[in-house]
Amino acid sequence: MSSEFDLIARHFTRATRQTDLGVGDDGALLRPQAGMQLVVSTDMLVAGTHFLADADPHAIGWKTAAVNISDMAAMAAQPRWITLALALPTVDEAWLAAFAEGFAACCAAFDVDWIGGDTTRGPLNLCATVFGEVPAGEAVLRSGARAGEDLWISGRPGLAALGLQQLLGQRELAADWRVPCLAALHRPQPRVALGLALRGLATAMLDVSDGLLGDLGHVLEQSHCGALLEEARLPLAEPFAACQDAAAARNALLRGGDDYELLFSAPADLRAQITALSVQLELPLTRIGQLREESGIELLAADGTRSTLVARAYDHFGA
Amino acid sequence: MSSEFDLIARHFTRATRQTDLGVGDDGALLRPQAGMQLVVSTDMLVAGTHFLADADPHAIGWKTAAVNISDMAAMAAQPRWITLALALPTVDEAWLAAFAEGFAACCAAFDVDWIGGDTTRGPLNLCATVFGEVPAGEAVLRSGARAGEDLWISGRPGLAALGLQQLLGQRELAADWRVPCLAALHRPQPRVALGLALRGLATAMLDVSDGLLGDLGHVLEQSHCGALLEEARLPLAEPFAACQDAAAARNALLRGGDDYELLFSAPADLRAQITALSVQLELPLTRIGQLREESGIELLAADGTRSTLVARAYDHFGA
Repeated sequence: MSSEFDLIARHFTRATRQTDLGVGDDGALLRPQAGMQLVVSTDMLVAGTHFLADADPHAIGWKTAAVNISDMAAMAAQPRWITLALALPTVDEAWLAAFAEGFAACCAAFDVDWIGGDTTRGPLNLCATVFGEVPAGEAVLRSGARAGEDLWISGRPGLAALGLQQLLGQRELAADWRVPCLAALHRPQPRVALGLALRGLATAMLDVSDGLLGDLGHVLEQSHCGALLEEARLPLAEPFAACQDAAAARNALLRGGDDYELLFSAPADLRAQITALSVQLELPLTRIGQLREESGIELLAADGTRSTLVARAYDHFGA
Repeated sequence: MSSEFDLIARHFTRATRQTDLGVGDDGALLRPQAGMQLVVSTDMLVAGTHFLADADPHAIGWKTAAVNISDMAAMAAQPRWITLALALPTVDEAWLAAFAEGFAACCAAFDVDWIGGDTTRGPLNLCATVFGEVPAGEAVLRSGARAGEDLWISGRPGLAALGLQQLLGQRELAADWRVPCLAALHRPQPRVALGLALRGLATAMLDVSDGLLGDLGHVLEQSHCGALLEEARLPLAEPFAACQDAAAARNALLRGGDDYELLFSAPADLRAQITALSVQLELPLTRIGQLREESGIELLAADGTRSTLVARAYDHFGA
């Protein structure tokens, strides 16, 4: 059987481009640029909760890096370095090689150096920690939103939730939409370019990992305000096309997690600028409502009726 | 049942002293000092491999922080920040409170800010990532040892291995030694002050987590040299007093892991300075041998006979 040290050498050691010392010592050495704040985030992925145990290992590797890099996008930071600690029940060389390739591919796609980690035996567990840089004071936090500002969402949230329903046999998606929905689930695209472009524009931002409503709740709580969502503005077309069920599409959009789109607030006088950014990045940016003084989340339906929505995030220990 | 967010608020959110933004956003914000390199290390702990499942949760918390902080000591870095991601099978409030107290106590003892993390449901897994600072170019790596230099070890390695044997019912330690051996196992003391004091003195260094011989092997491999250990110099007195068995004491010292003592090399003309440091820090520092050109590790016994030792580190995937 391969030793832990062989495994690290064979699968987990990659060339670095912006690191003073990578894998192989008690720690890695890196040098943040002067005037920058370092942004640090860690995400742990567990089989059954964050991915299905029989999922493609390349996709698991991609996703492990992507969900971490997405946190850098959500802070308007440039992701630069990442570590990976993992527990493995057994050594399956083919699985490991594909997993490491997927992790490295995502790192390379976003110019992130894989600088080190830890390997141990145990129930499958993947824990990455990512480091980014942002000019001091320019990170976009969850706490900066103000009543009167617009609320925006990137991309087509809901596709990943529909992809998961397809995988679990709970829904039969339209044939044309299976691939994009599964891609949204398995290979989320951290919105790094968008996050960087929103420095100085967005007043609050986070990445939607636990569902749009639940994550919106975090912004509202930290920014001490409420929100009015307009149903007619929700980017429902693609989830609807995928499942041809309006209620399911809306539910996937509002409550589905795992799309890693950016939810952000911005002053109303920046609408033209944000629309131009959407064209430039070739990424839909949709204004879905407004922030207001009254707490809570209200949904304004197309027929003018209003209903209160519960800002419940996906909770790993919830009932 | 408590939600994930309640748990984080109740147990995992502590005041920080040297951090711009701690727990609660997509990432933490910190600002390394100008001219410093950042040192990053991550260690994952799993029940059964790194601690017994029924161990005192306060001790598990302490150890999770300590083994990470120890990596900073081993790089001659000042530890400053730490994140903790954990997977929990269930929510046991009493266990969690004690675990978090132990983790926080170790952080506080070494002036480390606990800046964030992640909590998920899954088989028990504890993954911390630690960040330290070192003046650029002054980190002590594994690769800097040269033939002719002395080899030193801190403290009394072997006590943790004997403590584990006692716990597992494999050995009955002398009554006076049970407490110190179990303390070495459960509450390892990262040698931060020693690591910092050895900047500019030690040429190579690491912390002994996988056994002295195995970890020495890493230094020798990266420094391209070999070592001659002198049995008469090994600090065997305390392991022997604990178990009154010379072979067991020697084996615990050479092959036992988990003491987190620092193994380092230094030029012979620094002996007096290092001995003075030992007095100043009230920490035994023992010169146990010498580095040499010939590869491998040889042991010179008290009677003048020589034998070759195998530099085998504890391997999580070994046979």
